[in-house]
Amino acid sequence: MDQLDNSSLQAAIWQKIDNKTKPRGALGELEKLAARLCQIQQTLTPTLEDPAIIVFAADHGLAHAAVSAYPREVSAQMALNILAGGAGINAFSRQNGIEVLLVDAGIDWPGERPAGLIDHWMGPGTANSLEGDAMSDATVEACLAAGAAVVQEQVSPRCNILGFGELGIGNTSSASLLMSALTPVPLADCIGPGTGLAGEGLARKVEILTTVRAAHPDPQNGREALRMFGGFEIAEMVGAMLAAAATGRILMIDGFVASSALLVAANLQPQILDSAIFCHQSGEPGHARLLAYLQAEPLLNLKMRLGEGSGCAVAYPIIASAVAFLNDMASFAEAGVSTGEPEALATE
Amino acid sequence: MDQLDNSSLQAAIWQKIDNKTKPRGALGELEKLAARLCQIQQTLTPTLEDPAIIVFAADHGLAHAAVSAYPREVSAQMALNILAGGAGINAFSRQNGIEVLLVDAGIDWPGERPAGLIDHWMGPGTANSLEGDAMSDATVEACLAAGAAVVQEQVSPRCNILGFGELGIGNTSSASLLMSALTPVPLADCIGPGTGLAGEGLARKVEILTTVRAAHPDPQNGREALRMFGGFEIAEMVGAMLAAAATGRILMIDGFVASSALLVAANLQPQILDSAIFCHQSGEPGHARLLAYLQAEPLLNLKMRLGEGSGCAVAYPIIASAVAFLNDMASFAEAGVSTGEPEALATE
Repeated sequence: MDQLDNSSLQAAIWQKIDNKTKPRGALGELEKLAARLCQIQQTLTPTLEDPAIIVFAADHGLAHAAVSAYPREVSAQMALNILAGGAGINAFSRQNGIEVLLVDAGIDWPGERPAGLIDHWMGPGTANSLEGDAMSDATVEACLAAGAAVVQEQVSPRCNILGFGELGIGNTSSASLLMSALTPVPLADCIGPGTGLAGEGLARKVEILTTVRAAHPDPQNGREALRMFGGFEIAEMVGAMLAAAATGRILMIDGFVASSALLVAANLQPQILDSAIFCHQSGEPGHARLLAYLQAEPLLNLKMRLGEGSGCAVAYPIIASAVAFLNDMASFAEAGVSTGEPEALATE
Repeated sequence: MDQLDNSSLQAAIWQKIDNKTKPRGALGELEKLAARLCQIQQTLTPTLEDPAIIVFAADHGLAHAAVSAYPREVSAQMALNILAGGAGINAFSRQNGIEVLLVDAGIDWPGERPAGLIDHWMGPGTANSLEGDAMSDATVEACLAAGAAVVQEQVSPRCNILGFGELGIGNTSSASLLMSALTPVPLADCIGPGTGLAGEGLARKVEILTTVRAAHPDPQNGREALRMFGGFEIAEMVGAMLAAAATGRILMIDGFVASSALLVAANLQPQILDSAIFCHQSGEPGHARLLAYLQAEPLLNLKMRLGEGSGCAVAYPIIASAVAFLNDMASFAEAGVSTGEPEALATE
């Protein structure tokens, strides 16, 4: 396909899709998805090889201010749960044959740091953004480089589809602040219950994040936004997303926090959006608004709000279905099936 | 679990779900789905065994009146395409390890009837409902019995999850007429483009179906509606659905035509709805209204409108994800993870 320019490839893709034994457009979003996979891989016969999901884990200084329904030590506990194979992301990834890589971007371990995580530890959680920047400019750069290194050094070279997950008590607060800094959406519309705040707890989160936002100037770009609002896991994810797109991989985007990382990545490299498949619309209310801002149509809307890359793992078979119909269905000519009357067919 | 009454089982199910290492409710629709699977199988550890999809194929007398964008011979051609493994349902079922069974309920074969289909042939298509009943009362009964026989004789006894698909040029017309007969929705709101009608073609379909509906009295029940409006494949599907529910199986419901069959089945046996998982909301506009009438929340909304059971095959891994988290995720106690502060947690 190297000889084809982009519009020729686009025309060839839709000719292939429209000649499958089905009414035109009858596979709906799967057809658009198949066309996007062809574009990313610059081929008419896309494949999915060695799928993997990288989970970045870190703690947040702001979590000392009670912005979450869960205590801060849950970050470390849940990282160990993923390491032991007991978390949601493990169950879904086992089901669908996806490798899980767990990166310690900066968990505040209660004792010694355990073995087994990929080590890109930037410290025991970010600084508290109520009191200053979440991290330094140098740490932002170190995080971006660390995320890229994970993709370059830890991911199978054959892997051509990569999902991104996170865990970190307090990280929907960072995501809300990043979203409010890099989109026109008002801060209050970027904030939601996270792991499950309601009533007074949620009101307190809105109050705290409003104070944080007011304590910082408007960031001029994604790097500055990361410095101000964190977190380590989000910044490393940004670096990993950029590296994954640069190596031609399909990017599976999970929920609210992962989408905030993509928002930052797109601020640094707008073309990354061409590589992104939005897997799931989170139950976190800011996510619908962020997806609308990105003009993204997620594959699933199951009201999940778990993080960990769980939306990627659950949606992966849908992506595989797009590949399956494109590569395995017969064409009208192959099957000897009559086509519809062109004048009677809806065009879309 | 035999000792537990229904409310005890329900409580035990939600205790199990809420003790998984995730915020309460964080797996959204997957949690409700898992609870339904437990209820259907009356267990806390549901399984999915030998999944299969039965595709019922037949022709329609009404299709002589140009209610479809495709010529009538496409039913026979597409049945052969499924038999050869080239259709969408084959690609998706191969992907997800699902067996496909193809039943000839009444295709109008151009020559000799081919071997390889499960034979419950009721004739070369229904009679034209513009001119009288689509079939006789006796044929309705024969179809219901045939559908049950497919489940009893052709489906693996180990299979505990069964999907239902159809093909037949003209069958969205039958589905629209059945829906208008058995729900309060006006006929015009039950009609859509089917395989792809637009403009004048769609207007002609509305006109023809309005004429058909006016030519018949109001049916008093699902059996009468089948007699008046057909089709053979829908009536056999009704019988198969009833037999599948009676044997405790999970029913995967596809799009508009399969949902119209379930509507008829629920008219005959209301409890069948407890066994039904709605897999996909079709792009066919009447389907959203039918799902709303049935108070059903489909797992997927990918704007597909292919039929063949394709929505079941694509959604099957989502159902498997519900089983995976319920059986394979660690509990808070198993993983040593702290639970959230009850007073801060949203309740749903």
